[in-house]
Amino acid sequence: MPRFRMIVEYDGTAYVGWQRQDNGHSVQSALETAILSLSGETVVIRGAGRTDSGVHAMGQVIHADLSRAWVPYKLRNALNAHLAQAGEQVSIIDVQAAPDDFDARFSALRRHYLYRIINRPARLALEANRAWWVPKSLDHEAMHAAAQQLVGHHDFTTFRSAHCQAASPVRTLDRLDVTRRGDLIEIRASAQSFLHNQIRSFAGTLKLAGEGKMTPADVRAALEARDRAACGPVAPPEGLYFMRVDYLGDEPQPDI
Amino acid sequence: MPRFRMIVEYDGTAYVGWQRQDNGHSVQSALETAILSLSGETVVIRGAGRTDSGVHAMGQVIHADLSRAWVPYKLRNALNAHLAQAGEQVSIIDVQAAPDDFDARFSALRRHYLYRIINRPARLALEANRAWWVPKSLDHEAMHAAAQQLVGHHDFTTFRSAHCQAASPVRTLDRLDVTRRGDLIEIRASAQSFLHNQIRSFAGTLKLAGEGKMTPADVRAALEARDRAACGPVAPPEGLYFMRVDYLGDEPQPDI
Repeated sequence: MPRFRMIVEYDGTAYVGWQRQDNGHSVQSALETAILSLSGETVVIRGAGRTDSGVHAMGQVIHADLSRAWVPYKLRNALNAHLAQAGEQVSIIDVQAAPDDFDARFSALRRHYLYRIINRPARLALEANRAWWVPKSLDHEAMHAAAQQLVGHHDFTTFRSAHCQAASPVRTLDRLDVTRRGDLIEIRASAQSFLHNQIRSFAGTLKLAGEGKMTPADVRAALEARDRAACGPVAPPEGLYFMRVDYLGDEPQPDI
Repeated sequence: MPRFRMIVEYDGTAYVGWQRQDNGHSVQSALETAILSLSGETVVIRGAGRTDSGVHAMGQVIHADLSRAWVPYKLRNALNAHLAQAGEQVSIIDVQAAPDDFDARFSALRRHYLYRIINRPARLALEANRAWWVPKSLDHEAMHAAAQQLVGHHDFTTFRSAHCQAASPVRTLDRLDVTRRGDLIEIRASAQSFLHNQIRSFAGTLKLAGEGKMTPADVRAALEARDRAACGPVAPPEGLYFMRVDYLGDEPQPDI
């Protein structure tokens, strides 16, 4: 069966998360329903990463096997028409034909996430559900310095949800950069793979660094403790965006 | 009574517009209700500009007279707490004490608006209600060239709603710039004042220029026709943002 690779954008606010679940509507089921209503096929799609309820995506990647060799842009338009019809906050940005051995999850070389903080005294109106509102002033340079303690090959037990299903807590974090433009603080994280809640755990801990409550050495000690209790309060989901996935053979792209 | 000047942000999606109306909830009434619940005072606030239902603001300016000489940041925080309590998509970004002769509407020297178009084949998910989705490719340089025909002192009857209440259709348009970054086309408009639907009328007409359906000379001819029928279809409200108002004596700021 022809395999397709798709880039998916979604507003995660109204979904129980990426993964199909019994307790509510997921992004995965929105997409599988759109395929069913288009082609009559019951397929199980695979995403490059699971996102929690409230987490957004600009560049989730999926693969799906369909019986027909669709022209990619026509498949994109037809699925988007079904998603619009169903009132979903999901859009398929791009469709490509993919080789049979392409796997959205297991072929991924590098995943890129963005965590957005709006740091201002006033509550959010336009950016409600789109960023973490932190009213107290944060020092983004202190956050960046603390973040550099986390880059590299480490046991990330401290920054991993108790529900994380990964076999190992060891990961290689390629990048954790903190920048600021006006009220907007952006945390950019890249790695081959992440643990459950890893970036939100980083964001919650870096916020403490930005408030002056943790030094870079404290963050280093929290990492080395390998103890979930050493982590700052996990940052809320609405600041997190799954931005892009890189695969072998892709044209190189600049960092997000 | 002490007068206050405030900068207001709102997501216009759920409101009937800026102005208090009998047929639904307005941004003005959300703010007046917050003041009432804070201080027990029934005040009528004045905004620098009326915005239609679905139009957003990052920098609407209002003035209000209150009986108490509030410390400005405490007034901001207290009003935001009441707005949050009421579930409003409105936030007060800044409060300043203002002289008695400051009038948010009549003292305005220059108003700045942004109109956002997302120009890509895929429907909007994260930016739904936040931009105008135009799937067919637009030439933003052609749009900018056409826009320059509109800059200056003109009779803008062509670009004015039939419901416009202004005494004269003559305005001086200081700036109408069209730029592109990836899929996002931004139209920036600045003038001392605008007619009702003027910027959405510009955006709808410039879209035709971007599609190659109108040349700059055609846009010039539409302006000179002074005929509403010569205007392109009015662009939808969700792309429009009221960004900033400049007043005499303000510290000069760069253009938006």
